[in-house]
Amino acid sequence: MTLITSIDTADIRFPTSLSLDGSDAMNPDPDYSAAYVVVRTDAPDGHEGHAFAFTIGRGNDVQVGAIAALAPHLVGRDVEELLADMGAASDLLTRDSQLRWLGPEKGVMHMAIGAVVNALWDLKAKRAGLPLWQLLSRMTPDEIADLVDYRYLTDALTRDEALEILRAAEPGRREREAELLRLGYPAYTTTPGWLGYSDEKLARLCREAIRDGYPQIKLKVGADLDDDVRRLRVAREVCGPGYPIAIDANQRWDVGTAIDWIQALAPFDLAWVEEPTSPDDILGHAAIARAIAPIPVATGEHAHNRVMFKQFLQAHGLQVMQIDAARVGGVNENIAHLLLAAKFGVPVCPHAGGVGLCEAVQHLSMFDYVAVSATMEQRMIEYVDHLHEHFVTPTDVRNGRYHPPTAPGAGTEMTAATLAEYLTDRDPVVAS
Amino acid sequence: MTLITSIDTADIRFPTSLSLDGSDAMNPDPDYSAAYVVVRTDAPDGHEGHAFAFTIGRGNDVQVGAIAALAPHLVGRDVEELLADMGAASDLLTRDSQLRWLGPEKGVMHMAIGAVVNALWDLKAKRAGLPLWQLLSRMTPDEIADLVDYRYLTDALTRDEALEILRAAEPGRREREAELLRLGYPAYTTTPGWLGYSDEKLARLCREAIRDGYPQIKLKVGADLDDDVRRLRVAREVCGPGYPIAIDANQRWDVGTAIDWIQALAPFDLAWVEEPTSPDDILGHAAIARAIAPIPVATGEHAHNRVMFKQFLQAHGLQVMQIDAARVGGVNENIAHLLLAAKFGVPVCPHAGGVGLCEAVQHLSMFDYVAVSATMEQRMIEYVDHLHEHFVTPTDVRNGRYHPPTAPGAGTEMTAATLAEYLTDRDPVVAS
Repeated sequence: MTLITSIDTADIRFPTSLSLDGSDAMNPDPDYSAAYVVVRTDAPDGHEGHAFAFTIGRGNDVQVGAIAALAPHLVGRDVEELLADMGAASDLLTRDSQLRWLGPEKGVMHMAIGAVVNALWDLKAKRAGLPLWQLLSRMTPDEIADLVDYRYLTDALTRDEALEILRAAEPGRREREAELLRLGYPAYTTTPGWLGYSDEKLARLCREAIRDGYPQIKLKVGADLDDDVRRLRVAREVCGPGYPIAIDANQRWDVGTAIDWIQALAPFDLAWVEEPTSPDDILGHAAIARAIAPIPVATGEHAHNRVMFKQFLQAHGLQVMQIDAARVGGVNENIAHLLLAAKFGVPVCPHAGGVGLCEAVQHLSMFDYVAVSATMEQRMIEYVDHLHEHFVTPTDVRNGRYHPPTAPGAGTEMTAATLAEYLTDRDPVVAS
Repeated sequence: MTLITSIDTADIRFPTSLSLDGSDAMNPDPDYSAAYVVVRTDAPDGHEGHAFAFTIGRGNDVQVGAIAALAPHLVGRDVEELLADMGAASDLLTRDSQLRWLGPEKGVMHMAIGAVVNALWDLKAKRAGLPLWQLLSRMTPDEIADLVDYRYLTDALTRDEALEILRAAEPGRREREAELLRLGYPAYTTTPGWLGYSDEKLARLCREAIRDGYPQIKLKVGADLDDDVRRLRVAREVCGPGYPIAIDANQRWDVGTAIDWIQALAPFDLAWVEEPTSPDDILGHAAIARAIAPIPVATGEHAHNRVMFKQFLQAHGLQVMQIDAARVGGVNENIAHLLLAAKFGVPVCPHAGGVGLCEAVQHLSMFDYVAVSATMEQRMIEYVDHLHEHFVTPTDVRNGRYHPPTAPGAGTEMTAATLAEYLTDRDPVVAS
């Protein structure tokens, strides 16, 4: 019998605030950080599961502590049994009634669960010798449907409806997998658009984005309307008419302000407006969407669980759904999000950037293409060219497309050099 | 100049799971716990600010860690300046952009902010020589309006509208304060209704509740329909027709199940149905409320911030609003909730129980009566007779009413004996 022997954690922080990379209207000086987890076993194969929750600096230690609090649920468990039923593995953590009180299913504790669930998927994929997107894409519709917790979803999505979606996408799986490997998955770039950059840097990065084949760029907005008008004018002039430019307000506005501000920017032809207000404000997003139509509202990177996404879809609060690999309860809950999006016919364009979010979330979009929505129409993954060098399998983004990872695992393992610098050596947490 | 010298924390846990006190359909074995904080100053008066976040056991250490992460914001600050503008003090913590990423405004980090904000209020009230409810009730409408963060609220409540509500309640403040001191504030009891109790114990506790003058009891439901029918029959027989009996499902159901289950229990004449489904599911609560009308839906103990309450009110997802003293960003955010409820004309019946929640939340209802809604109609505070002996100013509940505390402070300080047992002696956290 193979057992989980330890859950190790690390508090990894990069001083990104020094360069203003990642600066936006709500987050002027983020230090991109990872609350990192390693799941180790006594299997002779030596495989480890690696993953993380992404934070922007202060509080990363709290996030690490929350991950460590989950160790007693896992250490000493039979690895085969645990990984054979990943739905049950996820429930084991999500349904701990005492820990659930700390959310429920939101914030620090839920992100910790997401990190651990993702580490288990990394381990499972390595043991299977497959990248996560291929591992998921080759599961049967029934196996995939069993990964999802339908609690609180059944008024919008039942297991039977999920199964119907997955079965409808079964034909052509092999062809889509081959196409992905040949052509990759569309990417858009946020690199030009950080608020801290000068107009010259913005213009240069816009030119580079087009030269590099990106089908869309995104600009941060929301701190100052005059600045936004000026920066959008620069971007539109460089990019030319018709080229898709999205904007992202990072939750800066109230509902009324959002509507006025967006209408002032609308002449620059907006591909979408992202996070116009509080990520909790489903009805507010719906009101904004009605007022600014046909400009689509995009949101979701801070939507904390499937119940929120369900309501955003029910209320028409979003027209572009932005899942995040490290905000929610992990791969399982994100599969629920992909199924909800498919049910409601809304495109998923994941949030990425940060630390390792690109590496992680590409697996979900690629799985979605092969086995869930079966389309790349109107879909693309955000790309930011920061911090990829810290990962064992960094993204391979060329010609404006993510080219699928082929290395086994979930893409969430940092390099030995980075970990050597940061991984705290501590005694393995032992089950009580 | 008086400075904050340290933020001390304690991980305090009571083994309530041994007695099944507090057992419900979602939380079968809670160990009622407090992530406790003490704010100390170098003032010669020796006053300290005490407060806590309430948890139900595992993870209390994570919650304590989150409180400790806030210390650098406070240690070394000028006490007079900080306490003179409690709106700014609350913003200081809530608007830390890096910590905000861990929510935003939800879960472990937001509850930590709530604990620290409440400890500052406890300190402020002690320095003023007043119980918190009186301190708040004697502030001017402008001063009260300045305590609230209107970000994300202005489509439902502006500062001007808040001011209008507060000014309308200014006449009669003195009379209502006197009436409160004379008569107290209505309480209802959940003591009879825990799921772990036998029918005999349930019947006995129902008789005692009526004997003790409570105008309403509440029963936990949702684990098993046959059991619920049997237990409601016992309670209804003991209490007699017309006596208000509420039920509480603690988030156990999906929307469809909730509607069916409640309709099966409706013949027992339900005063309200509490937490029928996920606390995030605003639209689900609204669908349930429409289906079971005229039975009111009550919720809010897990509503994580003012944006959620705003939407519950906008969507008619609740007819009874249940604020919680330790779930959100503290007294300031709860004042936003009281103002929202007043704006929408919905009664507030706070959640309490746990550890010290009764002691804390009574101040908010009493303040609401004197200075906000100016009425006790359809309003009452939950009461559970657990763990009050650990508090310096335990609740004084007699004849089914909370009698107002007169001791200075927010009611959130534990006794020296309890703290001596639990308070970890650690070096004061020093500002970096």
